Amino acid sequence: MMTFETLSTNRSHGGTQGVYQHASSSTGTGMTFSVFVPDHAPGAKLPVVWYLSGLTCTHANVTEKGEFRAACAELGLIFVAPDTSPRGEGVADDAEAAYDFGLGAGFYVNATQAPFAQHYRMRDYIEEELPALIAAHFPADMSRQAIMGHSMGGHGALTIALRNPDRFKSVSAFAPIVSPLNCPWGHKALSGYLGSDQSLWEEYDACALIQKGARLDDLLVDQGEADNFLVDQLKPELLEAACEQAGQKLTLRRQPGYDHSYYFISSFMAEHLRWHAARLG
Amino acid sequence: MMTFETLSTNRSHGGTQGVYQHASSSTGTGMTFSVFVPDHAPGAKLPVVWYLSGLTCTHANVTEKGEFRAACAELGLIFVAPDTSPRGEGVADDAEAAYDFGLGAGFYVNATQAPFAQHYRMRDYIEEELPALIAAHFPADMSRQAIMGHSMGGHGALTIALRNPDRFKSVSAFAPIVSPLNCPWGHKALSGYLGSDQSLWEEYDACALIQKGARLDDLLVDQGEADNFLVDQLKPELLEAACEQAGQKLTLRRQPGYDHSYYFISSFMAEHLRWHAARLG
Repeated sequence: MMTFETLSTNRSHGGTQGVYQHASSSTGTGMTFSVFVPDHAPGAKLPVVWYLSGLTCTHANVTEKGEFRAACAELGLIFVAPDTSPRGEGVADDAEAAYDFGLGAGFYVNATQAPFAQHYRMRDYIEEELPALIAAHFPADMSRQAIMGHSMGGHGALTIALRNPDRFKSVSAFAPIVSPLNCPWGHKALSGYLGSDQSLWEEYDACALIQKGARLDDLLVDQGEADNFLVDQLKPELLEAACEQAGQKLTLRRQPGYDHSYYFISSFMAEHLRWHAARLG
Repeated sequence: MMTFETLSTNRSHGGTQGVYQHASSSTGTGMTFSVFVPDHAPGAKLPVVWYLSGLTCTHANVTEKGEFRAACAELGLIFVAPDTSPRGEGVADDAEAAYDFGLGAGFYVNATQAPFAQHYRMRDYIEEELPALIAAHFPADMSRQAIMGHSMGGHGALTIALRNPDRFKSVSAFAPIVSPLNCPWGHKALSGYLGSDQSLWEEYDACALIQKGARLDDLLVDQGEADNFLVDQLKPELLEAACEQAGQKLTLRRQPGYDHSYYFISSFMAEHLRWHAARLG
């Protein structure tokens, strides 16, 4: 029986890139994730950076294309990349198997609506279960955590951090969905997972959480100006306005020419990791 | 009609990562390749690094996983990644579609044996046709070229450089096949493409070329000690012996724990590019 299993390890950049699988009590499925651990002194514990991925991704996209290992090895950071949804037999999917709902599109929520409520509990998974597993199996200093993400995962990183400000010393995002209440991806996902009462969506909306008083020390956001999803889905101006109104510190960088791909993410990954390392101490 | 076509461009690491396709006169097929061009002053020409890929690969593997762009942008290097074989309708493949012959396994030779002689002319393609295309379409200073490669592509880089020492200012390889005359991959490929007369294989064997007098200024080779192919296929000790006997300078680094994957290649990519940049002037 699978409880915690190593699927692969590869030596890379003076550290170990591993892929692991475990039986998740949150989702009731097997869940796969990757962890990079730099070489370190025996018994030493290293700070942890969480990276939440976007629509359609698994742990593998950032693990292969994210270009995070050189900086993590240099800075002494463990890098954890979870999957984006439950998967496997019996896990409900979008009725038309669309890319923006169901498999690969868990939106980091605890679903309340049938048939998704049974397995789609990514909030519990990222907030509760996986941290305990990381603490148990890796040389992680859980008093020093940072979180970042891309697109749907940027939404995940922002909302999880805003709801759990004491857990994270720093937060950043690449091209995040800043307000599911105000974009088609968000409306489709949150109505499907949570139902039509939009007041229940607010705890999964970074702008709404800030408006209701949630605060973090600082936020770093990079957004490509050539991103196809900029105008209709991502809307960084909403986050900018919410932060300005609330007095929430925000560093929003608009990057000319960059799109929504890992060619963009990898370009600024090392800068984000340095920003986190400076705050993780 | 396709002559030279841009398939995609993405801004990345302060430069442009493009993928291109053209009708190749060498192979008689469409050929796809990628080129990264760092931002540069108008009219400026940049040195070129050629990267030849290994068995099963296309241009895409290194383009996605090679982690070369940050260093190329910093050092001002154009990075060219060709495909590893002709492809498409009518291109002969291995009888059993094995990974180590035919499609994805052109071995950088001009085949003489039917049915491969018709399209498998990767030597002409890399030595003659693609350089002219790069010179015509990109801001490339063709007087400053370097070449590198991985596994089968390490073989390609070494043998092409040894046959064309005036073209390249520096040469390096990751886990190269150093002697097709002395390994199963080489015997299968060269007998299939060139026939059973092994004297005809020598111009495609780095060790044999060095033994027959070919020389380069210096060679940099990284080889993972946990590489599954080390003992039966790669045999760096043969290159070491050939270089020692010939007085050919060689920097061979055995890297403990590293395997044959892009987790290995990406770990040392920046060091190789710095090594090339220092020699490209």
